[in-house]
Amino acid sequence: MTATSARITALDTYDVRFPTSRELDGSDAMNPDPDYSAAYVVLRTDAADGPEGHGFTFTIGRGNDVQVAAIDALRHHVVGRSVAELCDDPGSLSRDLIGDSQLRWLGPEKGVMHMAIGAVVNAVWDLAAKSAGQPLWRLLAHAEPEWLVSQVDFRYLTDALTPEEALALLRNGRAGLADREVTLLERGYPGYTTSPGWLGYPDDKLTRLAEQAVDDGFTQIKLKVGADLGDDIRRLRTARAAVGDGIRIAIDANQRWGVAEAIQWVTALAEFRPYWIEEPTSPDDILGHAAVRRAVGPVKVATGEHVQNRVVFKQLLQADALDVLQIDAARVGGVNENLAILLLAAKFGVPVCPHAGGVGLCELVQHLSMFDYLALSGTTEDRAIEYVDHLHQHFDVPVVVRGGHYTAPLDPGFSATMREESIAAYHFPDGTFWAADRARQESDT
Amino acid sequence: MTATSARITALDTYDVRFPTSRELDGSDAMNPDPDYSAAYVVLRTDAADGPEGHGFTFTIGRGNDVQVAAIDALRHHVVGRSVAELCDDPGSLSRDLIGDSQLRWLGPEKGVMHMAIGAVVNAVWDLAAKSAGQPLWRLLAHAEPEWLVSQVDFRYLTDALTPEEALALLRNGRAGLADREVTLLERGYPGYTTSPGWLGYPDDKLTRLAEQAVDDGFTQIKLKVGADLGDDIRRLRTARAAVGDGIRIAIDANQRWGVAEAIQWVTALAEFRPYWIEEPTSPDDILGHAAVRRAVGPVKVATGEHVQNRVVFKQLLQADALDVLQIDAARVGGVNENLAILLLAAKFGVPVCPHAGGVGLCELVQHLSMFDYLALSGTTEDRAIEYVDHLHQHFDVPVVVRGGHYTAPLDPGFSATMREESIAAYHFPDGTFWAADRARQESDT
Repeated sequence: MTATSARITALDTYDVRFPTSRELDGSDAMNPDPDYSAAYVVLRTDAADGPEGHGFTFTIGRGNDVQVAAIDALRHHVVGRSVAELCDDPGSLSRDLIGDSQLRWLGPEKGVMHMAIGAVVNAVWDLAAKSAGQPLWRLLAHAEPEWLVSQVDFRYLTDALTPEEALALLRNGRAGLADREVTLLERGYPGYTTSPGWLGYPDDKLTRLAEQAVDDGFTQIKLKVGADLGDDIRRLRTARAAVGDGIRIAIDANQRWGVAEAIQWVTALAEFRPYWIEEPTSPDDILGHAAVRRAVGPVKVATGEHVQNRVVFKQLLQADALDVLQIDAARVGGVNENLAILLLAAKFGVPVCPHAGGVGLCELVQHLSMFDYLALSGTTEDRAIEYVDHLHQHFDVPVVVRGGHYTAPLDPGFSATMREESIAAYHFPDGTFWAADRARQESDT
Repeated sequence: MTATSARITALDTYDVRFPTSRELDGSDAMNPDPDYSAAYVVLRTDAADGPEGHGFTFTIGRGNDVQVAAIDALRHHVVGRSVAELCDDPGSLSRDLIGDSQLRWLGPEKGVMHMAIGAVVNAVWDLAAKSAGQPLWRLLAHAEPEWLVSQVDFRYLTDALTPEEALALLRNGRAGLADREVTLLERGYPGYTTSPGWLGYPDDKLTRLAEQAVDDGFTQIKLKVGADLGDDIRRLRTARAAVGDGIRIAIDANQRWGVAEAIQWVTALAEFRPYWIEEPTSPDDILGHAAVRRAVGPVKVATGEHVQNRVVFKQLLQADALDVLQIDAARVGGVNENLAILLLAAKFGVPVCPHAGGVGLCELVQHLSMFDYLALSGTTEDRAIEYVDHLHQHFDVPVVVRGGHYTAPLDPGFSATMREESIAAYHFPDGTFWAADRARQESDT
């Protein structure tokens, strides 16, 4: 247990980058060469033997330093605060960070500054769950509905969701929790895999990985599309041949298109029965997503990994623009805002299929889906967490996926803690990997 | 003239902050204590006696360092480029910056990273206008319509505005240009003033400044509202009594409300006939603005100073959510994106009344409105540029407002150049003002 007098003594940041662009892992129509990176934060305390709180923003390389600077700019809100008070009410910090009257000019509630807030708020939730000796999913699932409602910022939401409605959803959501927890622990939470479908992979690798995905127990795979229609037709035909008719194939354009082009392109791929089209256009284009959705059904429309905050998700739901809502654990303002978004999805009856992959996103977001299953939506039907088999080895408690399902993590916390050796190696630009890499390049020239 | 071989040799950044919070200048319902600041950028070249390009992002204090870090992250795109090529086609840099496949993860096209792009792109336009020996408004107004269209990024816009439509608007917009230029040079461009209405001012100061505004020739003033309804009723009554019935009084809630509260509050103030309600709710809430507008007419709805990009403006217009569109010169991705937004406004027939004030925003944005008058909308009817009489003395070419009108600046460039002495004094934390301030505080304790 944390002594009640313990304080946050430091907020330490790390610019951690992995050289993933060299393998074309993660390549898509808008992101040809990502170097998966984390602007990583550790909250340290003066509690003897007490836990630390870990969190991060995921980025894809350049600009990770800007993200670190943004997290650094929040330090004065955190250092010196009571650990017990933060853990009892992470929402108090969330409100202070989002409400900083000068910093909010840099958003408000979007982009670099908002993701920085998300990293710090998530680090507090990691600390809270570790302090409680619980994995975060269980802490959330067993929390009192009134307390969960107190963790949500309803500003700009009440035309779609009131606190009273949220409370009713959470109270109803608890019915059958114990049974579902048994099921979750036995079977895990469904996943789907994007590993076969990166745009940079040749067709034989796509076929091999798609067949492997089915063998591994996945019932859905995802392909990146949007660079060249002829290629997409060939790749989707290849994938459909590899997995057969019973497996869902989602496609993901990563914001490549305008509205008319999205409709044309998806229509041209319809014969291969894509399950959803993800990010057909700008993540800011609520009305555009609605227009695409009206045109491409029965292909579903999915988006969310770049949706900046709860206000945009609210409108995507109000405008009937979404069939599938994709939360991301590290894009919005942390667990508190994702609670709001899960509640909005529940209110509108839209299934949540989280974005994950990158570095550490699978580790984080599984907790939110498991909470949703246990204590809010109460179902995994038409729901699955994205899974990509990259970089998990860098975490203390990596995700475990078996038979196409995420195994519920039992270690206390938010599964956010990166291994110290990994930080030492991939800290940019002076970690041992990057220093050796630089020396290698210099000796080559 | 710039030698055709000249290159950009440096991108220098400065964290400049003014201690405006000490006077409650700029206080509103969401920003009680702004320290008006600029993340300032200078593009230097190797052209002997050639001009420099100046630009900046406006912020309100904390986080200005994060904004500087974001501008620094763009340096590699700029240094080494041909000055002539940049000035002939600023859109080429705009596309490269917005299209950086790794940096776009930090937006895309929103928040800190996008404002950084705006600062750098605007610095290129300043350089281009100085190189051409023209004030930017004149360079834009006399540019070929085809070239202006080439400067616009139509991605995500074509469902509302095609390049062909933009070209037609610009071609038609030129009719009568010469006559309007004479008028502009004689009379200036209408302004309105926010100086009377800051939330922190006592009523007698409000009365005095409102009367002064009318004496100075302004036909519109603006009051901040949204903190306390009783205070707002009293202040609006005070202002109406001071200015009489013939002067427009706009009110500005700075995003304070949810949708229902906005409607209730504006309805309660309706007896004082506010001209527009500005930022009634979240700048991200397109559908919310539309709902407010449907409910509060004949009070108009205005927004834009925090609207992140052209995609959100497009939707505000598509959703009939706006009566008045407020561009900001330093929020979006620079002149190129503001050209897109002005074209959208022209297409939908919505008047543009720019946000200004802060530090340097009046200096910049006047050029865009003057271009719009001369070569696009062709009118100043129901249009006015916000004016606040703060901090102009820190610029080489400060705005000149006479008889309630902005005088057209004749010096070459974008009026963005801050005086060297001001940068030396207010550079944070080591400028002479801040060093002396710190020494004073230390001697007091």
